[in-house]
Amino acid sequence: MVQDGKTMDDRILLAHGGGGRMMERLIREGLLPLLGNEILARLGDSAIIEIQGVSLAFTTDSYVISPVFFPGGDIGRLAVSGTVNDLAVSGAKPIYLSLGLILEEGFPMADLHRITSSIQATAQEAGVQVVTGDTKVVNRGKVDGIFINTSGLGLVLPSAETSGVRSREGDRVLVSGTLGDHGIAVMASREGLDLETTVQSDVAPLNGMIEELLTLGRGVRFLRDPTRGGLASVLNEFTRLTGLAVELREDRIPIRSEVRGACELLGLDPLLVANEGKCVAVVADEYSERALRLLRSHPLGREAQEIGRVMGGPAGKVLLKTEIGGTRILDAPMGEQLPRIC
Amino acid sequence: MVQDGKTMDDRILLAHGGGGRMMERLIREGLLPLLGNEILARLGDSAIIEIQGVSLAFTTDSYVISPVFFPGGDIGRLAVSGTVNDLAVSGAKPIYLSLGLILEEGFPMADLHRITSSIQATAQEAGVQVVTGDTKVVNRGKVDGIFINTSGLGLVLPSAETSGVRSREGDRVLVSGTLGDHGIAVMASREGLDLETTVQSDVAPLNGMIEELLTLGRGVRFLRDPTRGGLASVLNEFTRLTGLAVELREDRIPIRSEVRGACELLGLDPLLVANEGKCVAVVADEYSERALRLLRSHPLGREAQEIGRVMGGPAGKVLLKTEIGGTRILDAPMGEQLPRIC
Repeated sequence: MVQDGKTMDDRILLAHGGGGRMMERLIREGLLPLLGNEILARLGDSAIIEIQGVSLAFTTDSYVISPVFFPGGDIGRLAVSGTVNDLAVSGAKPIYLSLGLILEEGFPMADLHRITSSIQATAQEAGVQVVTGDTKVVNRGKVDGIFINTSGLGLVLPSAETSGVRSREGDRVLVSGTLGDHGIAVMASREGLDLETTVQSDVAPLNGMIEELLTLGRGVRFLRDPTRGGLASVLNEFTRLTGLAVELREDRIPIRSEVRGACELLGLDPLLVANEGKCVAVVADEYSERALRLLRSHPLGREAQEIGRVMGGPAGKVLLKTEIGGTRILDAPMGEQLPRIC
Repeated sequence: MVQDGKTMDDRILLAHGGGGRMMERLIREGLLPLLGNEILARLGDSAIIEIQGVSLAFTTDSYVISPVFFPGGDIGRLAVSGTVNDLAVSGAKPIYLSLGLILEEGFPMADLHRITSSIQATAQEAGVQVVTGDTKVVNRGKVDGIFINTSGLGLVLPSAETSGVRSREGDRVLVSGTLGDHGIAVMASREGLDLETTVQSDVAPLNGMIEELLTLGRGVRFLRDPTRGGLASVLNEFTRLTGLAVELREDRIPIRSEVRGACELLGLDPLLVANEGKCVAVVADEYSERALRLLRSHPLGREAQEIGRVMGGPAGKVLLKTEIGGTRILDAPMGEQLPRIC
């Protein structure tokens, strides 16, 4: 796979799972040519499938985050929210989830209980049901504690089309709140940084807020949740898919000062850090104010901002107008800066 | 969870994932009270859900088998077959799969290529499409090579009711072929036993064969694939669900002599060993011969046998009439005899 003779391509690297260009390449050159079919090749956050005339969204995600309990959440809340959000940004109403547990021999029952309770609480918050499951146990040392897979099924909302195909020059780019909270909260907890009381993960199911936004119908042109690879990955995907460009105003991008500080300390770019309770929306110019109002009227979108606009070119580029007046290209990362963030 | 003060219940044990009574208890006492809803509580091989009047089967399974390549198959073929079979025995036509890969940093690309090719070949054999996926990479030493989750969606076939609710005294118990091949092939390869040339895993998608069988409509009363925990688990589940009993004729149960020999050598009971290409069917007495003919006319069912019958009691028991004329109770195992068999 990706057989071009370079040593780095002989083995899987952490960056192959990072949501950036290395992962994109593994999928496009390694997996798609083998598995390829029209539906998979679209590579949306969910597959849109039709069964007996009913249009469904179907998605899957495995969660391998470390540590499993972190400020603001845990792997259970993450496993429900992440999959619910993938369905929601695909324009679907999430309904059913599956739950696959892979447990390490010796994993504490009390932790499993806490995680399972969190799964149920988050499922209720999102209005979805866990309807099927599987439990595997692996010998001590062969898996790190607990990994969870959730797959999800949703009903595609009429007239929702969030893939970006309707986007055009002049559209506005919105985010539903502050960026980088999840990645920095997890990192701080992992590294024992003293941010635990101030930075909490934003992990949350966004389907309620997104359903509100989708009442704007054709006004909403593109929706994604900026998880691995952060805002940079999502917007580069948008410009690559549409052949358009995006110009961001750095001074409008909401980032908590503690997150900004931690990023400076750790040498991270907050625009590349993972979020688990935010969405990025591209909306038609004339719908921008209404979209912002809808987002801000929801508890999870209070800090929503318009952060930029869609340009005709340079094709495929994301430009960042910096606070000091310059412009730089915001590339998709090669891989995630932080492994096991989700 | 399962908080009764015993030390063995404070931590996850291998047996909690073994498909036997320990797993049953973990699910019933630990997970269901938290996650419980009507659909999940049925605990079938798939959830049967209804969306806009369309009846669908939805299932999930994680595959953690070691080694990933074994005589007769690999983790890719297993991950497609296992999930397809769970849909098929639930009376559904499998249509779509999701694919969640968890890879260890350093995993050889060539192995991933071989596994992905096997996934695609098996999906084609089964007539299903992989439509959505996810790839995670975990640091070296934090996962053993590759774990795969596949979730599956199928369309419930009209009049299929394979949960056992229609079963009654006098029904016949059929298996579609020899038992224990998968477990022994994997075990032999793991332990370096000299059986590799003679015992091959039976791993295969059974949906074609099962669709044939389901042309018998209401004649088919219960269907399962005897994976973890083997025939003993499946039939004990049947008798527990129905309140009926089963009497098996040991001399009719098809087991390869090499498998029988290996089981004696390793101290295993072949009726508890995992299969990945077999189904167990309970059919109405008057349909038994036709069912056997249908199974035997399919390449994967040539060695199908009628192995016993359903009795009115003793309620919940599986009885085995041994070759020497005695009768013993065939209990569900506590856990799987062989860890990481699927």
